[in-house]
Amino acid sequence: MKRVLYQGAAGAFSHIAARSFFDDDVTFDGRVVHFRQIGQALAAGEADYAVLPIENTLAGSIYENYDNLMEFDLHVHGEYILRIEHQLLGKSGATIEDITKVYSHAKALEQCEGFFDRHPQIEEVVTYDTAAAAKHVADGQNKVIAAIASREAGETYGLTILAENIEDDPQNWTRFFLVSTKSELPNTANKCSLIFSVSHKPGSLFEAMKVFADNNLNMSKIESRPIKGKPFEYYFYVDVEFDPAQYVQTKQALVTLKAHTQHLRVLGYYNKHHSFNQTGK
Amino acid sequence: MKRVLYQGAAGAFSHIAARSFFDDDVTFDGRVVHFRQIGQALAAGEADYAVLPIENTLAGSIYENYDNLMEFDLHVHGEYILRIEHQLLGKSGATIEDITKVYSHAKALEQCEGFFDRHPQIEEVVTYDTAAAAKHVADGQNKVIAAIASREAGETYGLTILAENIEDDPQNWTRFFLVSTKSELPNTANKCSLIFSVSHKPGSLFEAMKVFADNNLNMSKIESRPIKGKPFEYYFYVDVEFDPAQYVQTKQALVTLKAHTQHLRVLGYYNKHHSFNQTGK
Repeated sequence: MKRVLYQGAAGAFSHIAARSFFDDDVTFDGRVVHFRQIGQALAAGEADYAVLPIENTLAGSIYENYDNLMEFDLHVHGEYILRIEHQLLGKSGATIEDITKVYSHAKALEQCEGFFDRHPQIEEVVTYDTAAAAKHVADGQNKVIAAIASREAGETYGLTILAENIEDDPQNWTRFFLVSTKSELPNTANKCSLIFSVSHKPGSLFEAMKVFADNNLNMSKIESRPIKGKPFEYYFYVDVEFDPAQYVQTKQALVTLKAHTQHLRVLGYYNKHHSFNQTGK
Repeated sequence: MKRVLYQGAAGAFSHIAARSFFDDDVTFDGRVVHFRQIGQALAAGEADYAVLPIENTLAGSIYENYDNLMEFDLHVHGEYILRIEHQLLGKSGATIEDITKVYSHAKALEQCEGFFDRHPQIEEVVTYDTAAAAKHVADGQNKVIAAIASREAGETYGLTILAENIEDDPQNWTRFFLVSTKSELPNTANKCSLIFSVSHKPGSLFEAMKVFADNNLNMSKIESRPIKGKPFEYYFYVDVEFDPAQYVQTKQALVTLKAHTQHLRVLGYYNKHHSFNQTGK
């Protein structure tokens, strides 16, 4: 049976995303560790796949996981875009007025600033992961503590929703990659993610982008990030979308692109996730 | 006397950045509020300038402040790049072994994950701002609590450094903008920041970028970000660098650029901050 790694306890947002990729029976292995340790475990052969968050509409790209893709030479096989909704979860019988301390991931706490503004008596305590925070509350007997986590985490650990959808901004979506150590080339692919760097002279990025334009490849993402220890050199994170019929042309275009870059890593070809579109976002 | 707003208590990283912009006497006004309230206060005429963090080498762009520049129609007059170093600050006489609870901003706590891994008994509590956390520790009598903040915050509040430079990654830099509600056009400017959007068809971004290449404008940053509520449309955050002698040509190029964009906002012309370069980053 295939084994799928994710960061966090059962009910974590990564767990929800991981389930979306598989219809058949697989074993999910959630670990309350750093993302890098997920990359390490996958590279060490401890699982067939891992699911990693790669960007969030409010916080931007998750550089740490781009670094993991590079360091552990991981390949992308799919994307999933999940709406992030935060619930305040407490013990049965607790009320929001009782709560003095709320546990969650630092990012989740940040995304509920408005809630904490309205409840200044509540202390915000950081945990590794939202679902682990829910488990912590469930494991104890203390009714004055609560967690911020997903509805699924609440169900998993038998907690009650004390306040619903307390995120500041409902336009909160996280994009996840399904990755493995093996490369696959599905011929239905219509999207490709890549990382490249170009030399630091005017027009060098332009020359690279001309390849996309010349081949009718639509860039759906471009982001520059300084390369550590190399002043004024940048990695570019680029996603391109194309018609599956253009697949061979796209692969050719990336060969041309290589000649215009200092470094090029094709992260993977996969199918674009459409629900982001359907929900009107 | 000019009045300069920043987010946080005295000794906050924004305060350090704010001081770097002014040689002469100005009044600094630190407020422990959300960034948006800093933008609001500036727009309401409560100060002449504000200093806002705009990006961090580890976390990426701070979208909230790009939104503030747009919403309050603020103009950029300068940039400053500050090395972020985190100190564990406690009461005099405390030792690191005593500490059970550490207060700081969510981002600062995240950037010291390694420290918390090595000290699993310490609880991480979120505050608005690093310097406010230091003030909180200084104001109390409790020797088992500490804060993560700057060396300057430690000096301001008379705290002792219990552990030095506990950030995970020394390549931690934050870029700040000096902004006001008025536009200025310094003729020594060699850098310009802009935000634009293009139509969603292949090649439209390319056409915009061609303007930069044709005019020898070096893009030092480009980042795309989904526009809220508009599926598949993006804002591009772009910085360009140029020779001050090219200033008139650069302004002309941006007029040409306007014709290739749906929306274009020039955030400001200013002088590039060089210390980032000198430190070898």
